[in-house]
Amino acid sequence: MPTPKASAAALNASSEDAEAQFYEAMRDGDLERMMEVWADDDEVVCVHPGGARMVGPRAVRAAFEAVFAGGHIVVHPEHVKRVHSLGCAVHSVLERIDVVTADGPRSGWILATNVYVKTGLGWRMVAHHASPGGPDEIPEIADTPSVLH
Amino acid sequence: MPTPKASAAALNASSEDAEAQFYEAMRDGDLERMMEVWADDDEVVCVHPGGARMVGPRAVRAAFEAVFAGGHIVVHPEHVKRVHSLGCAVHSVLERIDVVTADGPRSGWILATNVYVKTGLGWRMVAHHASPGGPDEIPEIADTPSVLH
Repeated sequence: MPTPKASAAALNASSEDAEAQFYEAMRDGDLERMMEVWADDDEVVCVHPGGARMVGPRAVRAAFEAVFAGGHIVVHPEHVKRVHSLGCAVHSVLERIDVVTADGPRSGWILATNVYVKTGLGWRMVAHHASPGGPDEIPEIADTPSVLH
Repeated sequence: MPTPKASAAALNASSEDAEAQFYEAMRDGDLERMMEVWADDDEVVCVHPGGARMVGPRAVRAAFEAVFAGGHIVVHPEHVKRVHSLGCAVHSVLERIDVVTADGPRSGWILATNVYVKTGLGWRMVAHHASPGGPDEIPEIADTPSVLH
């Protein structure tokens, strides 16, 4: 896919735009597009499933570089719950991951909390915390079932 | 400890105050004080280590009730990284948990992302995402080592 949009992408107009770029970069294994999403702040934090906490843009970048070295990730953000406040957005995402195993294609779930803040350079990610959610049913217990949303 | 501060506590003046109440309620196993910290919003989200996503105040309450039924938790919030924006605060916390095992006392780490927003009723939690961080060394890779902070 051609990417003539690098500079435009750095000015995501909403947290939804920033999140779309985050998952697009994940699927494409595109480190530069991924790092455009992140705020340039020493305290940004990223936790990959089962991993340690990465603090700061350089540590976050190195972690994604290692992830992408293993190939791109077939990830579908689903069942997003959002809390917005002035200049800040919290998205809780159930990431459906498709993998091919010896027994054929399988899906699994990752639970992710993504936090974005509005900066002078558009909406940027300041935190991504992901943890395993299991292989089968949707890992959620809700006051109101997701299907109604 | 006497708790004549229930109504005052509902008006936490900062995200730090709200976080202090969150961990105090965790250590005391105090469900009412815990739920005072949370925003009254259908989309609040809580993930306990290895657990499903709880969405909404009732589901969050039921999950903490189940946790506290197992006894209080000796938890120490450490190495907090903060990103503040107008009306929103993201705290990444390494929770040190003390447990007594057959081999004596042990500590372990939980990685937690806590998000607070400023409401008309003070600073309230809108997201708590916790996942296992391992038993031994601090689960962190940082641009700048934590000890310098």
